[in-house]
Amino acid sequence: MAEKKDVGGMAKREKNRGEILKRIGVFADNLIGEIDRNENPHIDIPVRGSSNVAFDVKNKKIVLGDKVAKRYLFNVSHARRFMQTMLVASYVKKDLLENNLTATLRDLYYAKKRTIHGTKEDTIDEQKESDLAIVDFEVSLDTFREMLHLRAEPKGRMAGDMKIKDFVRDRESIIDLSKLGSGGLAIPSIVEQIEFMDHGLEYVLVAEKNAIFDRLNEDEYWRKNKCLLMTTAGQAARGARRLLQRLSDELKLPVYCLTDADPYGWYIYSTMKYGSMALAHESDRLGCKEMKFLGMSISDIEHYDLKSVTIKAKEVDIKRAQEMKAYDWFKPKEWQKEIDKFLDKKIKAEIQSLSSKNLQYISQKYLPEKINGQDFLP
Amino acid sequence: MAEKKDVGGMAKREKNRGEILKRIGVFADNLIGEIDRNENPHIDIPVRGSSNVAFDVKNKKIVLGDKVAKRYLFNVSHARRFMQTMLVASYVKKDLLENNLTATLRDLYYAKKRTIHGTKEDTIDEQKESDLAIVDFEVSLDTFREMLHLRAEPKGRMAGDMKIKDFVRDRESIIDLSKLGSGGLAIPSIVEQIEFMDHGLEYVLVAEKNAIFDRLNEDEYWRKNKCLLMTTAGQAARGARRLLQRLSDELKLPVYCLTDADPYGWYIYSTMKYGSMALAHESDRLGCKEMKFLGMSISDIEHYDLKSVTIKAKEVDIKRAQEMKAYDWFKPKEWQKEIDKFLDKKIKAEIQSLSSKNLQYISQKYLPEKINGQDFLP
Repeated sequence: MAEKKDVGGMAKREKNRGEILKRIGVFADNLIGEIDRNENPHIDIPVRGSSNVAFDVKNKKIVLGDKVAKRYLFNVSHARRFMQTMLVASYVKKDLLENNLTATLRDLYYAKKRTIHGTKEDTIDEQKESDLAIVDFEVSLDTFREMLHLRAEPKGRMAGDMKIKDFVRDRESIIDLSKLGSGGLAIPSIVEQIEFMDHGLEYVLVAEKNAIFDRLNEDEYWRKNKCLLMTTAGQAARGARRLLQRLSDELKLPVYCLTDADPYGWYIYSTMKYGSMALAHESDRLGCKEMKFLGMSISDIEHYDLKSVTIKAKEVDIKRAQEMKAYDWFKPKEWQKEIDKFLDKKIKAEIQSLSSKNLQYISQKYLPEKINGQDFLP
Repeated sequence: MAEKKDVGGMAKREKNRGEILKRIGVFADNLIGEIDRNENPHIDIPVRGSSNVAFDVKNKKIVLGDKVAKRYLFNVSHARRFMQTMLVASYVKKDLLENNLTATLRDLYYAKKRTIHGTKEDTIDEQKESDLAIVDFEVSLDTFREMLHLRAEPKGRMAGDMKIKDFVRDRESIIDLSKLGSGGLAIPSIVEQIEFMDHGLEYVLVAEKNAIFDRLNEDEYWRKNKCLLMTTAGQAARGARRLLQRLSDELKLPVYCLTDADPYGWYIYSTMKYGSMALAHESDRLGCKEMKFLGMSISDIEHYDLKSVTIKAKEVDIKRAQEMKAYDWFKPKEWQKEIDKFLDKKIKAEIQSLSSKNLQYISQKYLPEKINGQDFLP
């Protein structure tokens, strides 16, 4: 909280930019040193394969282990990726950070793809090559792509009784999230510079679906219940995940998650909370470890008498649930019980099935009951 | 413009609601009349198949013809759908309009799905049945689903030098679209109630991609060029389409569209402008007939020297282009020439390929040149 008061969003962005430019300087100096000493230039890159991914029980996150690979310039199997990592480094430093601009992964690909002079070889054949080089560069600098001014596809909306400050270059906007009508604020892809201002919030409620956001917004749920309402519109984008983490860490607000009662919904939840195997190197920056799963649970189906509007589980749901049961982050007994219930009954339910009661059942009965009763899964 | 001044968004919504309730009253009275006269109750439903779809050259839209089908209650092949249409009518009137609430198609499905007493038959087996009944009901009332308070999945964002007024139930928000930071306003699914207020706009620029919105927003393109900037984030959602139509019709602003240079981009454009075969019954409400295609065109690839960053067209692109060439709405000679060029060269280009020049090329060179030169396709 102290840091929040001292460092505004703009200053924070400038500080981040300076810090990353400094790290890139060190990164380059190391290489130049090796060249000067006639050594084979190399980069240290933390290994991201499953052999180096573990679940950190204490800190509740999926993390990378200590294994580091060395990538050399003079090694036929390393040289191409080494060169691509240098292209990424140069683009991030000169085109983005020094100009104070942001870009997408695709922009970088287009900017750095070219035929190498005197050959028929391209620097980059497909975007997935430069994407991998970007991740290499992120992890070797021990940072994440938003700090390199790289944008991901944004997704999600929010509304609530809070003001925030956001910046486009050096122009400041103060945005009152309680006065954005039926649409709400579109969550941007980079949220580092956002400052949380006055708020009267007691918790954050994040729904997997746009339809639930619209329902709760129309019912003025967030106003009546003093919460910040967010939808991720499916699997959460990086901007939404980072924002949830910041709301939890900086404002110490409880964060409740609302998805369908099925393994895909649980997967969306667990990715927001713990991170994922594929992005284990970014759990630190994207995981919201205090998040609670409010619903829907398989137990809710019985409790709220929703059997007639359930859906038969598919093979893929069952397989996914069996896998989940074995994950360390689903080991808490409450989750094991839920997954067992699902595997036993082989039914799932959408959150919108509550509409079979009546449209406002979710905002007038289901949510108040769940939240007042602190009826959530860890 | 006069109507805009006289009727605020709230009053307009109330007027719409009253009007639709009246139409539903007439719809019901007709059926009751038939029942009283011992006639077979029926509904008149405009035919939506391709046999009844035509292109209205003068009004630049894909429209339904005059063919009307009669659906009877006492007809074994009609009875089920007749019953479903009544369920829709009852839900729209009693649950939505009378309570002044909105819902999704899925909410309606859940609310009206049940096992018919004394049988093993369900009122609705799958959502696509109730969805079809909703369209039947829309066209038989000569309206569109947003007027029935049915929401579609929202998508898209906007920013620009304009204030708008929006409402959640009877609570008013005045939203300054120039002060929404890097995210912009999320475009809601129902936009009928939105009032356009003060603005300093000269045109509307709608980009297919979030990445282009982010680029132009960061470059403050909309501020420097006095435009409203919008992204549809792919194929345009109904809310975005209706809003574009209203901006064009009510504010008389030119609307320019920016997509990739490929048949899929042209398809996104043509759907926003003319409507589509599948939704011919809604072109009136969703088409933005004055929209112009700013780019990217296949000609741009040569003109802006982008050959090195083009992509080889796939079979599906070529097939789609061949089909498009035959559509009435692609008959203007400028389009025929573009499509021929594409079919000849068999290459396509993404709008982001302009980043191969430099990141700000699109906002500093490409767009100003295209717009100042009025270099667009009809």
